[in-house]
Amino acid sequence: MTPEVHVVLLHYPVLNRRGDIVSTAVTNLDIHDIARSARTFCVRSYHIVTPLDAQLELVSRIMAHWKVGHGAKQFPTRMEAMELVRVSRSLDEALECIRDGREGAPVLVATCARDIGQVTFGELRQRMAAAPEVPHVILFGTGFGIADEVLQRADIILEPIGTASDWNHLSVRAAVAITLDRLLH
Amino acid sequence: MTPEVHVVLLHYPVLNRRGDIVSTAVTNLDIHDIARSARTFCVRSYHIVTPLDAQLELVSRIMAHWKVGHGAKQFPTRMEAMELVRVSRSLDEALECIRDGREGAPVLVATCARDIGQVTFGELRQRMAAAPEVPHVILFGTGFGIADEVLQRADIILEPIGTASDWNHLSVRAAVAITLDRLLH
Repeated sequence: MTPEVHVVLLHYPVLNRRGDIVSTAVTNLDIHDIARSARTFCVRSYHIVTPLDAQLELVSRIMAHWKVGHGAKQFPTRMEAMELVRVSRSLDEALECIRDGREGAPVLVATCARDIGQVTFGELRQRMAAAPEVPHVILFGTGFGIADEVLQRADIILEPIGTASDWNHLSVRAAVAITLDRLLH
Repeated sequence: MTPEVHVVLLHYPVLNRRGDIVSTAVTNLDIHDIARSARTFCVRSYHIVTPLDAQLELVSRIMAHWKVGHGAKQFPTRMEAMELVRVSRSLDEALECIRDGREGAPVLVATCARDIGQVTFGELRQRMAAAPEVPHVILFGTGFGIADEVLQRADIILEPIGTASDWNHLSVRAAVAITLDRLLH
């Protein structure tokens, strides 16, 4: 049984370069690339969180194109990936949708490029494999990362992806792909 | 010692949905995301191959912005990633640049989402770790993948990324990130 994993991409509250809390813009490729990675690794749903009306509308329009419009007919495999995408105004709204009436809260896993995580990929992979029925929600931040107020709510902060270089500026699309591969492959 | 790895992203010759050989358009995020993944995993250079003059000019203009222009001043970490980017008219031109006057040809590793590869990630990882001084060039295709004429030239065809789902439509940006992580982390 594949572990029950959901992915959340936060556009608010996240940090900018100076450490201020901001709301970032949704980019088209964040929707597509992460939906495709999610579909590849049997992730159950992919939630885009943005509080901005114009951004919510943009995401809904793109999703409609790929789920029922022209894109769906032309690219059925893309439609399959886009079917995982949800859009929410807040993290709480996304978590409510993931809970879907079930009792208890899912395990909230935050990712962070800074070296503040206490749980390794290997440990989390084992935990999830040992209890595949326990829903895990993996949070990714846009901009310069997830704001402290969300990190503090997390049950688990995952170690940084970390490599031989000490350069930790992967795109969020690459970070999601690598994280899902390490946890679910 | 980190193995000597170079990444090549082919925009020609690649396949379209119907299996015809085409030249695809370069996208801005292919440049940035893959440069950032390359920098993270200590890849030595990242070559974008396109035979089209207008595309070559576009890539050169984007690179100039990030390497010496406004972008370089504002985002020095992005500049560090963009310094790995080269642009070539053909795979042969890219390989010549990678050889850089040295004797012998680098090992050509093709990637393919179809199940035609004979070498596993683990095997290639071991080979590279055992001989880190041997240059390996990892080829990725845009569109619907690398054309047969290039696959036939490869010394190694790598196994598909493959997961519990049988859905193999990752973005090339995600495929590069996962491949580098599996080979070099």
